[in-house]
Amino acid sequence: MPDKAYIGLDLGGTKILTAAADERGKILAREKVFTEVEGGRETILQNIYQSITLVIKSAGLHKDNIVRIGIGSPGPLDIEKGTIIESANLPWKNVPLIKLVQKKFGIKCRLQNDANTAALGEHTFGAGKDVKNMLYITVSTGIGGGIIIDNRLYTGVNGNAGEIGHIVIDPEGPQCGCGNHGCLEAFASGTAIAREGREAVRDKSAPELQKMVDDMPGRVNARLVAEAARRGDQKAVEIYDRAGYYLGLGLANLVNIFNPELIVFGGGVIKARDLFFSRSRDVLKNYALTGTGEAVKLKTSNLGDDIGVKGAIALAMQTDEQY
Amino acid sequence: MPDKAYIGLDLGGTKILTAAADERGKILAREKVFTEVEGGRETILQNIYQSITLVIKSAGLHKDNIVRIGIGSPGPLDIEKGTIIESANLPWKNVPLIKLVQKKFGIKCRLQNDANTAALGEHTFGAGKDVKNMLYITVSTGIGGGIIIDNRLYTGVNGNAGEIGHIVIDPEGPQCGCGNHGCLEAFASGTAIAREGREAVRDKSAPELQKMVDDMPGRVNARLVAEAARRGDQKAVEIYDRAGYYLGLGLANLVNIFNPELIVFGGGVIKARDLFFSRSRDVLKNYALTGTGEAVKLKTSNLGDDIGVKGAIALAMQTDEQY
Repeated sequence: MPDKAYIGLDLGGTKILTAAADERGKILAREKVFTEVEGGRETILQNIYQSITLVIKSAGLHKDNIVRIGIGSPGPLDIEKGTIIESANLPWKNVPLIKLVQKKFGIKCRLQNDANTAALGEHTFGAGKDVKNMLYITVSTGIGGGIIIDNRLYTGVNGNAGEIGHIVIDPEGPQCGCGNHGCLEAFASGTAIAREGREAVRDKSAPELQKMVDDMPGRVNARLVAEAARRGDQKAVEIYDRAGYYLGLGLANLVNIFNPELIVFGGGVIKARDLFFSRSRDVLKNYALTGTGEAVKLKTSNLGDDIGVKGAIALAMQTDEQY
Repeated sequence: MPDKAYIGLDLGGTKILTAAADERGKILAREKVFTEVEGGRETILQNIYQSITLVIKSAGLHKDNIVRIGIGSPGPLDIEKGTIIESANLPWKNVPLIKLVQKKFGIKCRLQNDANTAALGEHTFGAGKDVKNMLYITVSTGIGGGIIIDNRLYTGVNGNAGEIGHIVIDPEGPQCGCGNHGCLEAFASGTAIAREGREAVRDKSAPELQKMVDDMPGRVNARLVAEAARRGDQKAVEIYDRAGYYLGLGLANLVNIFNPELIVFGGGVIKARDLFFSRSRDVLKNYALTGTGEAVKLKTSNLGDDIGVKGAIALAMQTDEQY
């Protein structure tokens, strides 16, 4: 049994992934428990507690050896209070999760949104291991970001830094989930790609996609648009290309602001990167100022589905000075 | 004579401002020498050397007591090499300024672009004195920025961070000096305001402004557009309002990315803030995500014309660990 151990918990809309790691971050045990959102607040909380109890047991640890628990959760969060204000896929509001977990286990606990924990995960264990200044960008249902500056997570004055999905790229653009118009997320997220695909099915400009969903626009998602594109549906190809163009503009903005060494990409939409990423690269090259465009390396996350739980472990492992 | 002193030099297109300061940053002496850009590279260099020699003498210092010289210059610069790659108002290229000044005086020297030194100046001596994370934004001929994170200047992997004038706000927008379309600078800088004013004089939509420049569009500058607006020229009012709108979008993007505690504004255009800044504030409030818009304080630089030279002193005063 190691002297010091850490626990990471990745809270998702369908499952809770938990892992215990030793002081070098080596995984000792993993557990998966369903979130059971349909059960509501108390059920979700009990499942969180049980997943922690389980993983402590599987790793053969004593509570006294656990330095810290790190939790990654969809936000928005109130980092200072350790509270989940709201989460897209979870039916709860204003949950003082840190306080509850600390009380339950008597172990120190930290909470960050999932993009920030992913950034820490990539920086500690993944593609950004030896990099001082980097960004992590997740392109999924939404678009989120985590910022590492000087080997530390940068979260801003009240924990809300990195909302790069809501950079306005074109004020005349489509409406975003946040209520504004023309956010990066409204152009290049999975939600945006699905929206464009649905419109194309409605106006009958994407025959292959239309066939795939039996003429039911409501069935279109970003993955199906990708499949249609691969089957040669020209409109579907264009939808991904357009998303790639706007993602490139967003990247150029970030590169002009941060002049980062590395950007690591994760999230479901990135799995279809063959359909749009070379376009993003070209736009980035055109729009980034001299020096910054050449300096930045673009990599795909190499932590795969582990990114959430490894990020949560990385969060737990940050020393107080680092954090 | 203080044991330790610092020298700051603000290199401008018309004048070189130099000051010596004691170890707490108190100014001991100041000097002003004309840049004489018409004399070319050697003349400019001699004027830089003379301004440093002069201020050492006026402050009654010995070279041995001077810890460091800080130089703020228009860029782009190559920070690692300490080289001025190019400067808008100076007729030189690839000047290894750090090496030359160090060789001439035998004193350590640092170089940063003027927006970065201004950010350091505001953080050390001005509106950002007690603030850990802040942005400095200059709205002038161009739009530039300096980023302070965790009480340190953040400059990116090769010194080019903070190019916030080149955030793309609308890819269909007017062409920017950098060659791209729709940069913040192409909408909200003094250059953009003057361009709009000239167009208005040409299409006779700004009668007051037209009168002020005797029907010669080429005479229009941002200051005259402001004056016309104050005299009630409706089109001039609109031009500033539009600039304010786009500046607000740029601010919202920065606030969503950085969630900063403070943004300090400087630069000539900010002197006309009564004409556009309330608009910028409104747009910022509308576009910033919950929490970030409320958290950020917006202040105007309180260092006035001293910002360049005080920024250069702040640059010189950073310890090696800080820098």
